[in-house]
Amino acid sequence: MNDPRFRLNPAQAAELVAQFGTPLYVLDEATLRTTMRAYRASFEGRLSFAAKANPASAVLAIAYREGFGIDVASEGELRAALYGGVPAEACTMHGNNKSLAEIQFALSVGIGEIVADNFSELDKFIGLDFSMTRLLLRLAPGVDPITHEKISTGQEDTKFGFSISGGDAERAVKYCLDRGLPLVGIHCHVGSQLLEPSAQIAGGEALARFAVEMLTKYGWRCELLNVGGGLGVRYIHEEPMPIADYCASIVTAVKPILDAAGLDPVLAQEPGRSLVAEAGVTLYTVGAVKLAAGRRYVVVDGGLAENPRPALYGAEYAVERVLSHSDVSNLRPATELTPAPNPLLTGERMGLPTRLSGRHCETDTLIEDVDLPDDIQPGDVLQKLATGAYSSSMASNYNRYPRPATVLIRTTGDFVVIQRAETHDELLAREQVPADLLQTKERS
Amino acid sequence: MNDPRFRLNPAQAAELVAQFGTPLYVLDEATLRTTMRAYRASFEGRLSFAAKANPASAVLAIAYREGFGIDVASEGELRAALYGGVPAEACTMHGNNKSLAEIQFALSVGIGEIVADNFSELDKFIGLDFSMTRLLLRLAPGVDPITHEKISTGQEDTKFGFSISGGDAERAVKYCLDRGLPLVGIHCHVGSQLLEPSAQIAGGEALARFAVEMLTKYGWRCELLNVGGGLGVRYIHEEPMPIADYCASIVTAVKPILDAAGLDPVLAQEPGRSLVAEAGVTLYTVGAVKLAAGRRYVVVDGGLAENPRPALYGAEYAVERVLSHSDVSNLRPATELTPAPNPLLTGERMGLPTRLSGRHCETDTLIEDVDLPDDIQPGDVLQKLATGAYSSSMASNYNRYPRPATVLIRTTGDFVVIQRAETHDELLAREQVPADLLQTKERS
Repeated sequence: MNDPRFRLNPAQAAELVAQFGTPLYVLDEATLRTTMRAYRASFEGRLSFAAKANPASAVLAIAYREGFGIDVASEGELRAALYGGVPAEACTMHGNNKSLAEIQFALSVGIGEIVADNFSELDKFIGLDFSMTRLLLRLAPGVDPITHEKISTGQEDTKFGFSISGGDAERAVKYCLDRGLPLVGIHCHVGSQLLEPSAQIAGGEALARFAVEMLTKYGWRCELLNVGGGLGVRYIHEEPMPIADYCASIVTAVKPILDAAGLDPVLAQEPGRSLVAEAGVTLYTVGAVKLAAGRRYVVVDGGLAENPRPALYGAEYAVERVLSHSDVSNLRPATELTPAPNPLLTGERMGLPTRLSGRHCETDTLIEDVDLPDDIQPGDVLQKLATGAYSSSMASNYNRYPRPATVLIRTTGDFVVIQRAETHDELLAREQVPADLLQTKERS
Repeated sequence: MNDPRFRLNPAQAAELVAQFGTPLYVLDEATLRTTMRAYRASFEGRLSFAAKANPASAVLAIAYREGFGIDVASEGELRAALYGGVPAEACTMHGNNKSLAEIQFALSVGIGEIVADNFSELDKFIGLDFSMTRLLLRLAPGVDPITHEKISTGQEDTKFGFSISGGDAERAVKYCLDRGLPLVGIHCHVGSQLLEPSAQIAGGEALARFAVEMLTKYGWRCELLNVGGGLGVRYIHEEPMPIADYCASIVTAVKPILDAAGLDPVLAQEPGRSLVAEAGVTLYTVGAVKLAAGRRYVVVDGGLAENPRPALYGAEYAVERVLSHSDVSNLRPATELTPAPNPLLTGERMGLPTRLSGRHCETDTLIEDVDLPDDIQPGDVLQKLATGAYSSSMASNYNRYPRPATVLIRTTGDFVVIQRAETHDELLAREQVPADLLQTKERS
């Protein structure tokens, strides 16, 4: 199998480092568009991009141009889509705890769909203006996928959606019909980073059977059946099912159940990670190399704040040296030059296990055991692969580091900043210090 | 033992919710100052506040007014201290991967101390202007504390500092002496959230013995011996050692070793969490209550983005209802009124195990099994205790939620915003969308 992950060549890396420094998120537009087109070519139904994976407005704009709707989890994600020129009617709002203010904002701009999660939320809808907006119900299909517990969402015991087996799903349909809410469809999302489709198939089948049951019992015709997202990506050696096979397997499983009942809803999917992860890399500069307890530590200028996934999920990534210190030294401004290799560090590091560590004030391990050259030195530049999803979107300012820029490599090869780097002034913009605390005489 | 954690009374909570909404971080100045004074009264040496626990400029200002120096882990934390009126000479810069730019910034403003972590960093110092700045070495004392592995930092196998047993610490002293770097002291930090002092004592003793050895071998006189921080706090039932006993136990262990060699360095400590955690609460509004698989889910308007510690470390907190829905309904603007209890949800929830969940698009469990009243309803307001440390400082914009404000309750009882809430405009300020992506005609 070919490696589907985008990687920079040294010339690109050198130019990026010279122009933008590190750490730096990089996304390749050609890879993004190729992946999106693979979905479009493989799936006849409706496709939406799950913005939470990478809600940069330019990424949402590309997804929309490639024929995707945008699935947003909050008012903030909706605003990012609108900022990217995506019309509100192409957006679907999710979330297990939408505030009334969020719902009202979404309706006021004419969002295409809202997916209701729970009865507390349905209550909020009564009396609101749904003239431009269609309503779906998020259902819990009782499917337990094989993935990390923190991104497993389709089982019975979940905060998400109305349980089918527990009867809440049926009660919710009846609630909508009784109160005239514009219910058009049903939705589920069973989990993330799944390498094969059995959980999605089971979820889709449960939805289809439920749609048939609602037709029989209440005459309600499901017009839209959304099986969510969840296809995994290659972080290290994972081999996710090809997109075409994956899409086909879902349609093949779900369609016959619907056909037999004379139902023909639009089928919908919401890929997130699988559209963007492999199109992205993160560039780091090695700041220190040290030996401790028979281990080599290679320390980079990123970590927990710029990508919390290793700390949150034990997530693993592949990392490669893309430039050596000597390649970089004539690219950088003089103040950022790294000194020559320290003689105290040479000659004793061959073959040691290597841990890639971040710069933050805790353990902050990026990769527990990483394969890097024996001669790695401060000033070397590394690229970490498959970081296009859930990196910039989960970044924090822990230890008050400004968040890095994201550069898009256009299909022309040009570099364009789509999220500029944060500034130190921005990090202080929310601070307000009472005047009496600024008076030095008070110090005890 | 009295419960040392600050909590709001219902009248305070009602006023805060009416003025600022939720989610909201709240800090109590009286509790902050009381805790800081307990350290001052118990420890004769020098005290610094570890800014990373809560680097709000106003908090750093209070710590400075109470006689603390400020320990910063980055240029950003140093800037936050300066913004709070803390003079640079009262600051100490830490970090295992300081960039040359950060070091140069710190020296240019006249930072009091820099703590060097590794040889790559010592190399960077050569030729820089240390006329206003003293140099310390961070040492790895080979102490393995009993705490979460992600906040355990004093063992041999760590990214932090020069190993004493491995000989790097001695080589680093020699390196500084040979090159005329202004080495004045040594530092260690063995870990965080420690409930008793044995690890800090062992670390301090290792430092003291090392100082004696360096006096004997090289005639180097240690002037400052910094044993770091790490005293734990009460999140649920933890009972950390009293501050006075803790401080005394460290001095009692370390002093005799130094005295016997005729060394009399200033002793220093750097508490972080233990100064601020218990002074803070976070306010949430319940947005939904649902039943699934024999469990009650109570969903609040916060979670992973506003406090990642449960997801990162399995951290647990205590939470209490501080206002019921009916208390709140006459405080809120009409658009935020929560509807009456849903009849579909009544009568079947007595005695069920309850999980407190956040609003983010993953499992996002705040508390796995929480004790909340049977009649909890959307609109109820909860306070989570002991959130003054590592909550706002680790917050992200995941799902593009703006970060909440922090309100300081002054010793007068007045409320003052010390970090205002983020705005949606700020969340979009870094977005840049290439013009061709905004043209609608291109859509396929």
